[in-house]
Amino acid sequence: MQNESGIRRRDLLTLIGTIAGSSAMYQAMMSLGFASASAYKGPLKLAGDVKGTSVLILGAGLAGMTAALELRKAGYKVQTLEFNSRAGGRNWSIRGGDSFTELGGFRQTCQFEQGLYLNPGPWRIPCHHRALLDYCGRLNVTLEPFIQLNHNAFLHATRAFDGKPQRFRSIKADFQGGVAELLAKVSQQGRLDEFVDKEDQEILLQSLRDWGALDRDYKYNANLGSAEFRGYAHDPGGGLMPDPLPSDPISLQELLRSRMWRYLQIFARYDFQTTMFQPVGGMDMIGKAFAREVGDLIRYNAKVTQIQQSSSGVTVSYVDTASPPAVQQATADWCICTIPLSILSQLPIDVGGPMKNAIDSLPYLASVKIGLQFKRRFWEEDDAIYGGISYTDLPIQQIAYPNTGFNSGGRGILLGAYMHGGANSFEFTAMTPAERVASAVEFGAAIHPQYRNEFEHGVAVAWHRVPFTLGCAGQWTEAARAQHYRNLCQIDGRIALAGEHASQLPWQEGAILSALDAITRLHERVVKT
Amino acid sequence: MQNESGIRRRDLLTLIGTIAGSSAMYQAMMSLGFASASAYKGPLKLAGDVKGTSVLILGAGLAGMTAALELRKAGYKVQTLEFNSRAGGRNWSIRGGDSFTELGGFRQTCQFEQGLYLNPGPWRIPCHHRALLDYCGRLNVTLEPFIQLNHNAFLHATRAFDGKPQRFRSIKADFQGGVAELLAKVSQQGRLDEFVDKEDQEILLQSLRDWGALDRDYKYNANLGSAEFRGYAHDPGGGLMPDPLPSDPISLQELLRSRMWRYLQIFARYDFQTTMFQPVGGMDMIGKAFAREVGDLIRYNAKVTQIQQSSSGVTVSYVDTASPPAVQQATADWCICTIPLSILSQLPIDVGGPMKNAIDSLPYLASVKIGLQFKRRFWEEDDAIYGGISYTDLPIQQIAYPNTGFNSGGRGILLGAYMHGGANSFEFTAMTPAERVASAVEFGAAIHPQYRNEFEHGVAVAWHRVPFTLGCAGQWTEAARAQHYRNLCQIDGRIALAGEHASQLPWQEGAILSALDAITRLHERVVKT
Repeated sequence: MQNESGIRRRDLLTLIGTIAGSSAMYQAMMSLGFASASAYKGPLKLAGDVKGTSVLILGAGLAGMTAALELRKAGYKVQTLEFNSRAGGRNWSIRGGDSFTELGGFRQTCQFEQGLYLNPGPWRIPCHHRALLDYCGRLNVTLEPFIQLNHNAFLHATRAFDGKPQRFRSIKADFQGGVAELLAKVSQQGRLDEFVDKEDQEILLQSLRDWGALDRDYKYNANLGSAEFRGYAHDPGGGLMPDPLPSDPISLQELLRSRMWRYLQIFARYDFQTTMFQPVGGMDMIGKAFAREVGDLIRYNAKVTQIQQSSSGVTVSYVDTASPPAVQQATADWCICTIPLSILSQLPIDVGGPMKNAIDSLPYLASVKIGLQFKRRFWEEDDAIYGGISYTDLPIQQIAYPNTGFNSGGRGILLGAYMHGGANSFEFTAMTPAERVASAVEFGAAIHPQYRNEFEHGVAVAWHRVPFTLGCAGQWTEAARAQHYRNLCQIDGRIALAGEHASQLPWQEGAILSALDAITRLHERVVKT
Repeated sequence: MQNESGIRRRDLLTLIGTIAGSSAMYQAMMSLGFASASAYKGPLKLAGDVKGTSVLILGAGLAGMTAALELRKAGYKVQTLEFNSRAGGRNWSIRGGDSFTELGGFRQTCQFEQGLYLNPGPWRIPCHHRALLDYCGRLNVTLEPFIQLNHNAFLHATRAFDGKPQRFRSIKADFQGGVAELLAKVSQQGRLDEFVDKEDQEILLQSLRDWGALDRDYKYNANLGSAEFRGYAHDPGGGLMPDPLPSDPISLQELLRSRMWRYLQIFARYDFQTTMFQPVGGMDMIGKAFAREVGDLIRYNAKVTQIQQSSSGVTVSYVDTASPPAVQQATADWCICTIPLSILSQLPIDVGGPMKNAIDSLPYLASVKIGLQFKRRFWEEDDAIYGGISYTDLPIQQIAYPNTGFNSGGRGILLGAYMHGGANSFEFTAMTPAERVASAVEFGAAIHPQYRNEFEHGVAVAWHRVPFTLGCAGQWTEAARAQHYRNLCQIDGRIALAGEHASQLPWQEGAILSALDAITRLHERVVKT
């Protein structure tokens, strides 16, 4: 047997040689590597003499702290002013005992059980956010998978299927089955002949059968083949338990009219594709990790009131919110300002017309997130939903399930509403926090009736009422970006802006990349002079 | 504002009432609950007087230990004979320092770094395996997500794209784009009119544009819209970094001919749909957790040589493999035999013709898994692949990435080959373990050239050479199941069989369900007599 396998192995190695090809091919393959598509080119190296230059950073969110970390490393004198009493900005998690006062004066104190949290801001990290993942690695932030797509989660439309939630798997399988059957039918009747070669149509038919779970006659029907995608009426069991039973597909017509196909592609978007991550313990583990590095450079409770510059430096006025009203001043050779434009547009700032116009032009997205604590994890215990997101056309839009503590019993937090722009966001922003929570519970009960018995506490963050951002993120249109984006990102005298608003991607990654880009250009000026 | 939102809230509540409907509807919704489709009906309750009845269990895999746990709880006297020196059976993890001798005498000692492991048997748990998940919860086995679908993993075909691996995301997006464009074209030319109402065709076109990432003219092209699914040539960045650039789709013809569409649906199969799990620390955490409960009932190193029964009980002969050759005997009123049929068919056993024929009729699947340790997690660092599986038409078939320790640097284990049936399995089974590992490394380098520099150690398990199963799992055909399955599962005198081979699903769940079903039927007989 050894001898035989020895011979076989030589054959294999010859085959490998034939297949695996030349080193030129490896090079070609490497150039497919993801890294080549990323805007992040690895850890920043700011070389050269910075000549004792000082930089004042406004805002200790991820953009500001990235700048602080890298600039100090390069030899700059760095100080940072932060409005909040904590670092992180929108990188934020709310836990039991945390208090938060929103614009309008409503104050919430979170009553979540210890260990449970809500990420009111960013909550997921795509695998292609290379800069953020690199910092997580360097700063020892432990990650766990964030489940975006859960085939067992629900899709819900008030006017479809009598309001009954459908499992994602069924809608997905039935849409593919319906489309595949239709295209196969057209092909078999010769109606594709002018578009696709006969030979390729044969392969197309194979692929449609495979991918659409069609039967031998290219029909999408109730059978154990389609059940293998859309789920069973009765699952396979053990011993003499009942035989598996297929479930009944939804017709293409009913499916199209339900509009539930609108939700199928969310998980397939580049930003939401597997594998995604969240930090273990809450998104703010990242902000806290940055703050461990640069916390000594941050002055908290510092509300900036004015930003002035001359040809030789910047002077920033601020109020200590813990002991107003005395105005204080900080000065430096340069300023990196990461204050959200929603707030910066309200401050006097010495910059030229193009940058000022850009600052004044960006509306901020309304967004609301509501965290609900339940006595038990009924979504896992009753409904076998572990992580992921259910979608609905009710105002709450989404119900997202926790991606940690799976199958462990006990209490849990659902993201009971996540509105991202649109009328629902404004409606919920206009409510009191208690009303938002009550509404989320009532709407959610249409999908999970267990809400009525299991709900305990809630927390609601309406981003337009969050004092330090007045909105969730900059809402660039294509036209606004064409007109203002470059003006916003140019260094104006001794002031450079950074933050997600100064990026092409309104994510934490955008904040970090904008900071890296801004300080790189600033550093070039410093070492050249 | 409060007043206004108060009014709005009343409107909302009216709306909710209208939408959310009656309690009858809630009932209907609950009946959609996943649990209703599962063959598992919750924790077993064996009520009634068992009258001091004794049960001898053969095999301490998951089926045997489930039976032991539940029967003891119900009051039975239980003893278990196990061939191996450990519990778990195919529920098995190999770690550094572990030795394993396969049929033919090849002995491997694993050299993996501490904390790293290979699951040579089962390695993933679907969310619908309700029984297994319930036992994991009851036995405090901590779970973490298993990533089946990774959009950033590779698809590789030796004769397509010059052997260059393609990202899963691109193949998936381009297939959907190509199919959607084709169907949209046919619809616009009126060729669907006899199959789909005009009105529904309008919705179909909307859905195809959405789902296929088509442009305004229903074409699938290189643009920022399709890039949002297939990936960018250059990702969006921050500040004045270069603008995002779309990537070029693969034509439908090239895609069809590549056959890469064959891999698209794997993740969409019921058994592989999100959310899946693995135990933290290795699959054998489950076997160990069971053994914590019932280990005192297990006699290890007990090789069964004969199974006899009379009208009053069973007598099983066995040899203590640690001190042969003396044959020992164990007796009991009943026997639950979980020995794989590949081995049981070679033993003298007192059962009737129908069960004996069934035992002798089931071939076992050949399967090979190869674990490879690398100096660094290059798949994460270089290729941004975090968990999930790459597929290839090379003999290794799959490369699976670890689903734990993400982004943490250091060494890692790849599943460097996973053959599940077919000629490749037999080829690799015929090799020595060292040859299997060497071949896996050489083939794998065609997908990850980093293999050449980073490989350290490997372990290869060919299931046909594993002494305690002689195969991976029972390989039922539809015809064999029709002829033999019920005969296999009937209680024959005082002997009942259990194990994945006595189930409709060749998974750990099948083993547990078969045990629950067998002991339920056995218990009915006991309490009735």
